[in-house]
Amino acid sequence: MAEASRTDDSFHVFDTTLRDGAQREGINLTVADKLAIARHLDEFGVGFIEGGWPGANPRDTEFFARAAAELDLRNARLVAFGATRRAGGKAAEDPQLAALVTSGAPVVTLVAKAHDRHVELALRTTLDENLEMVRDSVAYLRAQGRRVFIDCEHFFDGYKANRAYALAVVRAAHEAGADVVVLCDTNGGMLPAGVRDTVADVLRDCHTYKPGARIGIHAQDDTGCAVANTLAAVDAGATHVQCTANGYGERVGNANLFPVVGALEIKYDRRVLPPGSLAEMTRISHAIAEVVNLAPSTHQPYVGFSAFAHKAGLHASAIKVDPDLYQHIDPETVGNTMRMLVSDMAGRASVELKGKELGYDLSTDRDLAGRVVARVKEQENLGYTYESADASFELLLRDEVRGSRERFYTLESWRTISEQGPNGFSGNEATVKLSAKGERRIATGEGNGPVDALDKALRTALDGIYPQLGRLELVDYKVRILEGQHGTGSKTRVLIETSDGTAGWSTVGVADNVVAASWLALEDAYTYGLIRAGLEPTE
Amino acid sequence: MAEASRTDDSFHVFDTTLRDGAQREGINLTVADKLAIARHLDEFGVGFIEGGWPGANPRDTEFFARAAAELDLRNARLVAFGATRRAGGKAAEDPQLAALVTSGAPVVTLVAKAHDRHVELALRTTLDENLEMVRDSVAYLRAQGRRVFIDCEHFFDGYKANRAYALAVVRAAHEAGADVVVLCDTNGGMLPAGVRDTVADVLRDCHTYKPGARIGIHAQDDTGCAVANTLAAVDAGATHVQCTANGYGERVGNANLFPVVGALEIKYDRRVLPPGSLAEMTRISHAIAEVVNLAPSTHQPYVGFSAFAHKAGLHASAIKVDPDLYQHIDPETVGNTMRMLVSDMAGRASVELKGKELGYDLSTDRDLAGRVVARVKEQENLGYTYESADASFELLLRDEVRGSRERFYTLESWRTISEQGPNGFSGNEATVKLSAKGERRIATGEGNGPVDALDKALRTALDGIYPQLGRLELVDYKVRILEGQHGTGSKTRVLIETSDGTAGWSTVGVADNVVAASWLALEDAYTYGLIRAGLEPTE
Repeated sequence: MAEASRTDDSFHVFDTTLRDGAQREGINLTVADKLAIARHLDEFGVGFIEGGWPGANPRDTEFFARAAAELDLRNARLVAFGATRRAGGKAAEDPQLAALVTSGAPVVTLVAKAHDRHVELALRTTLDENLEMVRDSVAYLRAQGRRVFIDCEHFFDGYKANRAYALAVVRAAHEAGADVVVLCDTNGGMLPAGVRDTVADVLRDCHTYKPGARIGIHAQDDTGCAVANTLAAVDAGATHVQCTANGYGERVGNANLFPVVGALEIKYDRRVLPPGSLAEMTRISHAIAEVVNLAPSTHQPYVGFSAFAHKAGLHASAIKVDPDLYQHIDPETVGNTMRMLVSDMAGRASVELKGKELGYDLSTDRDLAGRVVARVKEQENLGYTYESADASFELLLRDEVRGSRERFYTLESWRTISEQGPNGFSGNEATVKLSAKGERRIATGEGNGPVDALDKALRTALDGIYPQLGRLELVDYKVRILEGQHGTGSKTRVLIETSDGTAGWSTVGVADNVVAASWLALEDAYTYGLIRAGLEPTE
Repeated sequence: MAEASRTDDSFHVFDTTLRDGAQREGINLTVADKLAIARHLDEFGVGFIEGGWPGANPRDTEFFARAAAELDLRNARLVAFGATRRAGGKAAEDPQLAALVTSGAPVVTLVAKAHDRHVELALRTTLDENLEMVRDSVAYLRAQGRRVFIDCEHFFDGYKANRAYALAVVRAAHEAGADVVVLCDTNGGMLPAGVRDTVADVLRDCHTYKPGARIGIHAQDDTGCAVANTLAAVDAGATHVQCTANGYGERVGNANLFPVVGALEIKYDRRVLPPGSLAEMTRISHAIAEVVNLAPSTHQPYVGFSAFAHKAGLHASAIKVDPDLYQHIDPETVGNTMRMLVSDMAGRASVELKGKELGYDLSTDRDLAGRVVARVKEQENLGYTYESADASFELLLRDEVRGSRERFYTLESWRTISEQGPNGFSGNEATVKLSAKGERRIATGEGNGPVDALDKALRTALDGIYPQLGRLELVDYKVRILEGQHGTGSKTRVLIETSDGTAGWSTVGVADNVVAASWLALEDAYTYGLIRAGLEPTE
């Protein structure tokens, strides 16, 4: 491993997405997922990646075996997680400690109990034996050439219940050779002021017996303060922060890596990432969300799709003067972008700004801008939203400029059939009838579902007439059921993302049901694609 | 208004969901929505509800008119929001200030610029005239018998740029008779330590000219610290907190009312709500999410569906010993509940706990528990998730206990047709063929969409055979597209919530397409409903 390329050791950004993050409800990671996430985290530049608990979980054992063979980490060191040896046993004979060594990870995090009541009730051993377990386990792993971090579980609750014992666990770990002792707010009940005071007190105590002793922080978000708690610990002298990508974790989640790193880099002006990495933050956050198969949180600080989105009419007019007056940082610093939202709250000023973004000058034609605002309001009442469907908004805008919709074909009808028959047979079929350039076409397509079949039928119907459609691909498809708020039944909104290989665009359709809504979004997607390809409407 | 029933004035919980919260991307509130939210907030017990900007927005003007006629607030006072008078004008002649008075709201919040650069660039007036606008506007509204709060926009950035001027704005407001001057972190770039120091400094300054002067805090969440920033201000002496339900707001959002109130009530042991309200927090949070038509955030502190959900196998076994060791508060304090999650990470211990929750003792039959764990893993690999589909999990469990699926009919086939024809005709039709109690049935249903049609066809087919189905109603329907992570195409997961009028249950189906997945969830929903109704399977 090329030590020279690693960031220096004075401050640790320690990621535990693969272990603690995976505890989040709804996350289920395969080994391939874990390897993919490790690559993203390494590229982002964290110093440590906790990969899991080898020996306790076959999937994690496999992860470390494959990581050794397949991962070529440039910035991060791999960390194996485990517990201190069994009560009454010997570290050298403990099978779980042996599995940590076998994992090949150069760094090991051991969880140790620091709350007297947990020692008695969960470990069912004596307070002294617990201290011995810490000493013995750390010494054993150090003798095997491993760097050791100790996670003091339930530290803050333990400190409140029995300060002397909690401090004794920290001391046992430090004296046995742990590099960092991490104070964990396992149940997540702390607030920043308490974290700051406790970390400061612990560090004062540590420095009486080991000058330079290091403390880390592991915060859970149960009070909504995990990021602030992490920063409060840093304020008090912690030099190791444990986080997870997008704040994934058990219950509410863990301290979110991205706002923690964002604050350290931008607000503290402290270099904790390799140069250039911060600008990749938004992309990395979304890529990891993709792998764990959760929609990226649109309202996540720094990296959320909405993090720099402006809606208020009041602000919209002032943003024309100077965008920096309305943003705490330049979104490009973290690889994000400012967006003006089209919404009936925003009025003319933001429609004009949005038009400008798309290359239309609406400021000279107040009548046109007024018609666009009115159409947006009308459509929003039906359940449309243009905030994340730029292409559909641009088509609406072009409609108003032209006075009519641009059409490349005239639809006669479509029909989809989904069925499941005896003997497990199942199928989806769609038929589209339309005319284009004076020619009537009827085409039938089969697909994985009714929408897929409809897509294939439409492409087949237009085959030969618009060869440009061949380059278009549907890359994302989202369905949202809009609740009927007053018992009047629900509507379905479909968002489709389409790509022509060089750029992507989003379209929206709203209807009583998913098939009809998909059809509308599909029509917009292809109409926009053909306009982008430089074609003139024919119908 | 019954003043006696209001909480005392020494600390203000001020909600701005209806004004600032409505700026969130994706929120569009009707007047009826706003009235519904105001009722929920009043029931929860906030002291102030900021309803909007009458005069600037016709919808907000209508809201105040209807609020006066229709709302009977028990705990809260209604607040109208507006800006200080125009530069160069007179407060008494300002149409927007007049609209605030006309609104009838007993309290007015006026936004004032506190950042010198904003005064010059956005207001385009002099620093002195801005101070005069504050004094004049406050004095005018006071003379009209209104209580006045001043929101100092961009206060923290202004304080950094020009402390003396920022303090001068606060002083002008206090001296003109404002009850509270609220320091706004409009761009949301602050961290708790900075907020605490700034608020303390401002209060020191205020108390030199007005002993007892009050300061409030309005935090945005752009650094992920809005809750902590709000609490830091309280630590420094602020006695008025501005929040929004579920943290709704522009960009990342505002300080979330629920964790702020949760911390104040539980961690600070400070009574800021009427007695009994805290236990309504989870319900109120979800009810407001329902009205604004956003899915409640599952990972929200205190009130999220996952906020007290335990997944880890390690924890699951310890939770058997004492749940309080693994929760920062008793979930019932805030009206939430502990949940054990069924997941392949959890293993036998949590399947046993989950079984116990459902009334099955699996601890005595290790073989059965093992089979259930294996089935769950197998299904999770297909894309199923039982974490939020208890009824489907219980059916799986009963399958393993019985050795086969309980069936109330034998399906032969189903088919759905969706079509759109010429002249705007559109329709959805489904046909189901099945046999039940020896009788073969064929039924066709029409609906808003293919799933609705399928539901109607199934009910019609079973009509007369199981009259119990008449009581069952589908109350929620969610679709999730599971991305094919390795280019192998996508799957669709459908979650259905069903109610029999007294209780609800959730079921899940996964298939290549939305119709087939819905069918599976529908079958589980009705099977479970018939079992609940006490029926014995017949097939």
